[in-house]
Amino acid sequence: MINVGIVGATGYAGEELIDILLRHPDVRITDVSAKLEKPQEISDIFPKFKGRINLICAQPDIKKIAGTCDLVFLALPHTVSMEMVPKLLKLGKKVIDLSADYRLKDTKIYEKFYNTRHKDKLNLTEAVYGLPEIYRAKIKNARLIANPGCYPTVSILALAPLAAFDLVETDSIIIDAKSGVTGAGRKITEGFLFSEINEDFKAYKVNAHQHSPEINQQLSKLAGKKISVTFVPHLLPLNRGILATIYVKKAQKSQNLTALYKKFYKKEPFVRIRDEEDFPRIKDVVGTNFCDIGIKESADSVIIIAAIDNLLKGAAGQAVENMNIMYKFPEYTALL
Amino acid sequence: MINVGIVGATGYAGEELIDILLRHPDVRITDVSAKLEKPQEISDIFPKFKGRINLICAQPDIKKIAGTCDLVFLALPHTVSMEMVPKLLKLGKKVIDLSADYRLKDTKIYEKFYNTRHKDKLNLTEAVYGLPEIYRAKIKNARLIANPGCYPTVSILALAPLAAFDLVETDSIIIDAKSGVTGAGRKITEGFLFSEINEDFKAYKVNAHQHSPEINQQLSKLAGKKISVTFVPHLLPLNRGILATIYVKKAQKSQNLTALYKKFYKKEPFVRIRDEEDFPRIKDVVGTNFCDIGIKESADSVIIIAAIDNLLKGAAGQAVENMNIMYKFPEYTALL
Amino acid sequence: MINVGIVGATGYAGEELIDILLRHPDVRITDVSAKLEKPQEISDIFPKFKGRINLICAQPDIKKIAGTCDLVFLALPHTVSMEMVPKLLKLGKKVIDLSADYRLKDTKIYEKFYNTRHKDKLNLTEAVYGLPEIYRAKIKNARLIANPGCYPTVSILALAPLAAFDLVETDSIIIDAKSGVTGAGRKITEGFLFSEINEDFKAYKVNAHQHSPEINQQLSKLAGKKISVTFVPHLLPLNRGILATIYVKKAQKSQNLTALYKKFYKKEPFVRIRDEEDFPRIKDVVGTNFCDIGIKESADSVIIIAAIDNLLKGAAGQAVENMNIMYKFPEYTALL
Amino acid sequence: MINVGIVGATGYAGEELIDILLRHPDVRITDVSAKLEKPQEISDIFPKFKGRINLICAQPDIKKIAGTCDLVFLALPHTVSMEMVPKLLKLGKKVIDLSADYRLKDTKIYEKFYNTRHKDKLNLTEAVYGLPEIYRAKIKNARLIANPGCYPTVSILALAPLAAFDLVETDSIIIDAKSGVTGAGRKITEGFLFSEINEDFKAYKVNAHQHSPEINQQLSKLAGKKISVTFVPHLLPLNRGILATIYVKKAQKSQNLTALYKKFYKKEPFVRIRDEEDFPRIKDVVGTNFCDIGIKESADSVIIIAAIDNLLKGAAGQAVENMNIMYKFPEYTALL
Repeated sequence: MINVGIVGATGYAGEELIDILLRHPDVRITDVSAKLEKPQEISDIFPKFKGRINLICAQPDIKKIAGTCDLVFLALPHTVSMEMVPKLLKLGKKVIDLSADYRLKDTKIYEKFYNTRHKDKLNLTEAVYGLPEIYRAKIKNARLIANPGCYPTVSILALAPLAAFDLVETDSIIIDAKSGVTGAGRKITEGFLFSEINEDFKAYKVNAHQHSPEINQQLSKLAGKKISVTFVPHLLPLNRGILATIYVKKAQKSQNLTALYKKFYKKEPFVRIRDEEDFPRIKDVVGTNFCDIGIKESADSVIIIAAIDNLLKGAAGQAVENMNIMYKFPEYTALL
Repeated sequence: MINVGIVGATGYAGEELIDILLRHPDVRITDVSAKLEKPQEISDIFPKFKGRINLICAQPDIKKIAGTCDLVFLALPHTVSMEMVPKLLKLGKKVIDLSADYRLKDTKIYEKFYNTRHKDKLNLTEAVYGLPEIYRAKIKNARLIANPGCYPTVSILALAPLAAFDLVETDSIIIDAKSGVTGAGRKITEGFLFSEINEDFKAYKVNAHQHSPEINQQLSKLAGKKISVTFVPHLLPLNRGILATIYVKKAQKSQNLTALYKKFYKKEPFVRIRDEEDFPRIKDVVGTNFCDIGIKESADSVIIIAAIDNLLKGAAGQAVENMNIMYKFPEYTALL
Repeated sequence: MINVGIVGATGYAGEELIDILLRHPDVRITDVSAKLEKPQEISDIFPKFKGRINLICAQPDIKKIAGTCDLVFLALPHTVSMEMVPKLLKLGKKVIDLSADYRLKDTKIYEKFYNTRHKDKLNLTEAVYGLPEIYRAKIKNARLIANPGCYPTVSILALAPLAAFDLVETDSIIIDAKSGVTGAGRKITEGFLFSEINEDFKAYKVNAHQHSPEINQQLSKLAGKKISVTFVPHLLPLNRGILATIYVKKAQKSQNLTALYKKFYKKEPFVRIRDEEDFPRIKDVVGTNFCDIGIKESADSVIIIAAIDNLLKGAAGQAVENMNIMYKFPEYTALL
Repeated sequence: MINVGIVGATGYAGEELIDILLRHPDVRITDVSAKLEKPQEISDIFPKFKGRINLICAQPDIKKIAGTCDLVFLALPHTVSMEMVPKLLKLGKKVIDLSADYRLKDTKIYEKFYNTRHKDKLNLTEAVYGLPEIYRAKIKNARLIANPGCYPTVSILALAPLAAFDLVETDSIIIDAKSGVTGAGRKITEGFLFSEINEDFKAYKVNAHQHSPEINQQLSKLAGKKISVTFVPHLLPLNRGILATIYVKKAQKSQNLTALYKKFYKKEPFVRIRDEEDFPRIKDVVGTNFCDIGIKESADSVIIIAAIDNLLKGAAGQAVENMNIMYKFPEYTALL
């Protein structure tokens, strides 16, 4: 049994972490905190948790958190995480950070896309990118996990076999991604009002989204050479789920990529490869920690469609998966 | 041809007024204004109007407005209207006010429900309640129209025949109303975020909504005695439309209320009475200026279901209807 | 560990039963069946279950079902259930029937509302109405459970304390109920097409719904006298959840009904009473087996708002709750 | 004043045609027909038209239609149109066909994608493809218009300048299109149920949609050489609107495509080109007949995002636009 804290408990990822961890037999939530004007019962903030959790949510207090927790989930906006991580690590705590602060190894790129200086280069070096399908061995012994972004999770899983086996023309990858609105966090701006999004659909940050370098970094590492994707995200009028439609030119005339994918992910508990030309839809993965992938192959190009629940495999679910790996709990605990 | 101005052009009702008036053959929009940090092309704010209107939207300037307009629509939050109305009337302009400022004749009730003192009692006396089905004669010669609220429009139209003919037990009326989110205006608060409203439904201001006294005032006037309704509004996860389900105890064993309603509204261009037990749904009226009403009658009680588009018959459409009456244009101009 | 079968596995309630039971530590699903043209992997019908369940779904075959199962869930249209129940009981199986076939003790009323003769009056007498808050003691030893309808569940729980303590004027109860579309089952008719329901809202079966007699039967039993409610259901443009707004005239000038409700349901694991004038919304209960209830009381009347997830507390969740009671598993197993 | 008939009046396009034509000052609807079990008031089928149109909708009867109409709109499934067109033309009527039957000049391709033999090759030769921006001159004198498909309309308008000026690598075009559900017509199948589409998103007919050859035919004609696009349509959980995100490799290092597009479409009443990197969203065009286009250009590739209302510019609106051209009414009549 371990004790965990959730910082940023009032956001979508925080809410989801509570929901998952309340069902986890080996975990006790001992601290929830968030930027709040005054302390409040977490079950007053989320009445759906009434009768299930009995904790006051207040401003995060590092000492208080460290006093009760073995592991801390940070579900915070970027830049806020890198203030807290060094302190928590120093106090001997493990940290799973759901922000972008420890994902990009090149701080120049971080600074360009997040418009702020990186303040914790020391721990950045140590941080393990928490994509279990690629980094499970390192995750086991990590003190600090950089939990992947939602778009990068689905994009990297959809392209990893092609990158790893050098099967793709490096400048040809187009990722046309569509996400439900919880992907952006609980932002109180006009653009996220119901009547702005309902019955609408739009692209945003066209080929300029901060998740592009995260995707490029991981795919390049897998390929052993520079890969730079075209990435256009869109906003769907629904709560949760991401579907990415990916267009790739083949580097070789290899056939049967579906078989290759099935082999590549054979032992993975949370990646499901469909049969050729059978494609996932968002409802196949919403409420689950799965990433579903379908492929259609022609002589010189491939169309790959992949889907995840942005709050589960794309955030809180994967964070708990990482925790399970770190503490040697069965990887799927509380996630099925 | 008349020249009109729209103050509060960036809200939902303002947007709708532009949309309707651009199709009106006898009207030219000469001024649009709103609370904005800096002046902006109205078609940059609403790209759907690109190529159709070419006006800068800036902070409202009474002199500028009065300089070009014969009539001014105020689509403003309450309290802001009563600052502008006296000035516009003094300059000889006609005003159709979509706020609540001139609807309640009893300022004590206004002050209780809107938490502010009324500052223009002089013009309040003169203001005509802009419900054409009841006040058409007065509207013709009005200088100042208090355009009805959305819930009151549908509720009063649904109950007017019963009230007028003294057919209802005065303390028995229950109005269970359901509105799309544009009913509340473009409020940038957490409660109106997409993910707060989508896949959700709730009651709010349970029997404490500021539209209750407006309904009571009009029904009491029609009945010639005090009527006090139970009114519970709910928020629907859709953009526009109101449906009210109304439960009433009969005061008399009269039969065939449907026939009575059909007669009562026979000459009305925008009220449609369904046959007995045929009920309107929201999609029957969305995009129209109609109020549709269906009735189911038993020995001692009645269920009435009525629907309107909250932005048309419940706001901008009715405002234009009032303008048409004031200027002797055919009442349905630009509204069919 | 018990073995269960699900008949009608391809409907919404069937799908939900699979989802819950896959998480139940003491249950093994050994048979899934449904009206299908040809046998199919259940995980091909519901790709979200891929990798989690490995069963062929075929036409129900009583002998095959009885061969593997201790308990059978029937998630069937009414009239189909009463064909299967006698056979399953005869073979010594326990049955939880989610249809309406065993809910109404008076077959005349059944025949009036369901337009068909009742064919199994014998077992109808024995069937226990599966509302644990009222009938827990009987459920423990039942062979046949008539799992309550979704509207009746929320309505009866919202009114039981008033009925039991004789606090309500018997002819005054108005239930204005709003349900998501899964409440109606997976019906392939024009009325349930996306574009018919999206951005729309309507009442249906106005005071003529087949759930009315079920509500009346239970409330009358609790009150020890005839209660007949006015019941108007509406269709919400969302997938799941019911919210009922209930208007009642008090029979006595009693005060503090909220305290009374809290006491009445004190030991109940799945009923949560809010503080006075704090009302539940649909999102507070969706995905849970809870029924949340809020109350606003005035001198002579009461407004009660109650919410459930129609597929959980209103169908599959309550069915599993009944199973847990029958087999002495902790009542909340797989339901939190 | 002309008299028109609408065959297939009960579908989405038919409904929309009625709505537009009721506002058209030079048109009288004299006949509405559709596949119906028995004749019905069209305003009983669509209660929103009550009080606005007074016609019985019955099975189409060519003689009856020809007896009253100058022009007939066919809003029919493919294959049904080509049964009626020859008869109507023979009787001297003009026809605007919204089906696919007269769009593809190569009947082999038609037969491959629509799985049926073409039965009216004679009139196929004469039919004019009703995209005014490209074929306005021919439309003026046409007897038979093949009204373009929704996806082809938005795709061709978004790519026409590139194709016409030979600026695109012919095998590089990827069209990732997203459509609201009315795009598919009123199909009563499980896949179009509310709960199947709401909160879901999926690709369908991946690079195998019947609109691909229509796009290829028109772009190839404009380019004077064979163009073959990759086309993946997706289904959005909303009623109306299409947004296409298009990825293209440049054939030349030309710069400032935005300026080129603005010039190309300068005189077009219904195409609006945005400034560089300003992209349309679906709500900018829903309820309008506009096609809005935004462009982002890099050294060797281009991203184009274009949006239309699938029922207006993508079907009924464009059909009326074609009628306006044929009868020399101002092109925008009833469309603004």
